[in-house]
Amino acid sequence: MRIILASSSPRRKELLKKLFQDFEILPAKGEESATSKNPEEIVLELSRQKAEEIQSLIPDSTDYLIIGADTVVSLEGNVLGKPADEKDAEKTLAMLSGKVHQVYTGVTLLFSQNGIHKSISFAECTHVTFYPITAAEISAYVRSGEPMDKAGSYGIQGNGGRFIERIEGSYENVVGLPSAKIYQVLKKIGDFALRF
Amino acid sequence: MRIILASSSPRRKELLKKLFQDFEILPAKGEESATSKNPEEIVLELSRQKAEEIQSLIPDSTDYLIIGADTVVSLEGNVLGKPADEKDAEKTLAMLSGKVHQVYTGVTLLFSQNGIHKSISFAECTHVTFYPITAAEISAYVRSGEPMDKAGSYGIQGNGGRFIERIEGSYENVVGLPSAKIYQVLKKIGDFALRF
Repeated sequence: MRIILASSSPRRKELLKKLFQDFEILPAKGEESATSKNPEEIVLELSRQKAEEIQSLIPDSTDYLIIGADTVVSLEGNVLGKPADEKDAEKTLAMLSGKVHQVYTGVTLLFSQNGIHKSISFAECTHVTFYPITAAEISAYVRSGEPMDKAGSYGIQGNGGRFIERIEGSYENVVGLPSAKIYQVLKKIGDFALRF
Repeated sequence: MRIILASSSPRRKELLKKLFQDFEILPAKGEESATSKNPEEIVLELSRQKAEEIQSLIPDSTDYLIIGADTVVSLEGNVLGKPADEKDAEKTLAMLSGKVHQVYTGVTLLFSQNGIHKSISFAECTHVTFYPITAAEISAYVRSGEPMDKAGSYGIQGNGGRFIERIEGSYENVVGLPSAKIYQVLKKIGDFALRF
C-alpha cells in the first residue's frame, strides 16, 4: 500500500513518522480555496481538496492511503493563515498576546484497498493561551524567521513555545497534524502496519 | 554565568535548548526522597533537593543558574513514577487507558549573580486524557522499550503520543520541563541572554 502525505510541511512529516516507517510525500499544489468563512469548515474543505488533488494522480488500481491536512488559527472569529510578511507576523503576534485563540486542523484520509474505498474527514480544535508578550519579544521572534511559514505566525514546537501558557486539546493538532486521532481512526479502517 | 541543568533526562535537555544556546548538564545523583504523599509537594521537594545537591558542588563566588526538575504522574490520588519492570509498565498503562490523569513537574531555579541569590520553586499540573487502549497495544508499546524510563510509563513526545486524546495545561510539562513557564520566570529575574 502506498501511504502518501499530501503536504510539504516538515512538521507534518515528523508527526507522520510516529505512525509510519515509510511513506511518500506528494505535496498538493495548494491552489485550493475555501468557500466557507468558518474555520472548521475551511480546514475540512481544504484538507479534502489537497487529498483529492493527489488522488487524481494515482492509478485507480493502486492500494493507497492519502493524508491531506490544513491548519488555520482563529482569534475572536477572525481566521489567521500564514503571515504575508514580517509586519503582518508582528501584527498577528500582538493580537495573540495574552489571549486564547483556536487552532483548527482538518484532515482527510482517502483509503483504497482491494477495490474498497473509504473517505474520512475530521477537524480538531485546540485552544491555545498565550502569555502576554512584549513588542521587543515579538520583534526578536519575527527576526528569527520562525513565524514566516506558519499559520498564526508562531511555531509551538519551536521558540514560539515560550509564549504559550497552556493548551486545551491536542498538541500535535497545533503543530499541524493530529497524529493520535489519525492513529485512532486508522486502527478501525485498515490492518496495515502501524509502527512502534 | 554557568547555566546548569541538574538532570540527565535527554528530554529535559532538548527542552532547555529552546531557551539557552549553552548550558552544562550535572545530573543530581537522585538519592533524594520526598516526605509528602501529595504529588505537587513531592515534585517541589524533589526538584529542590536535586538543585541544592548541585549547588553544593559549585563555588560560592560563581554566578550560576541551576535548574532542578522532577516529574510524577498522578491517577486518582495514586502517584506513579517510573516503572520497575515491563510488567509494572503494562499495569500502569492499563490503569491510564480511557482515563484522565495529572502530570506534575516541579522546578527549582537557584540563581546567583554578583552576590545576589534567588531561589524560586514552582509546580505545573497538566491534565492528560488517554484514549482507550487495548492489551495488544500496551504489550507492543512496552516491548518497544519506550515506557521503561518514563514517569507514568509513556512518552507523550514519542510513540505514546498516539494514546493521548487531549491535554489541558502545558505540553512541555508532560515531557518533563515546563520551558515556557521557566522562560517567563527568568524574564523577570535576570538579564542573561535568552536565545531565539
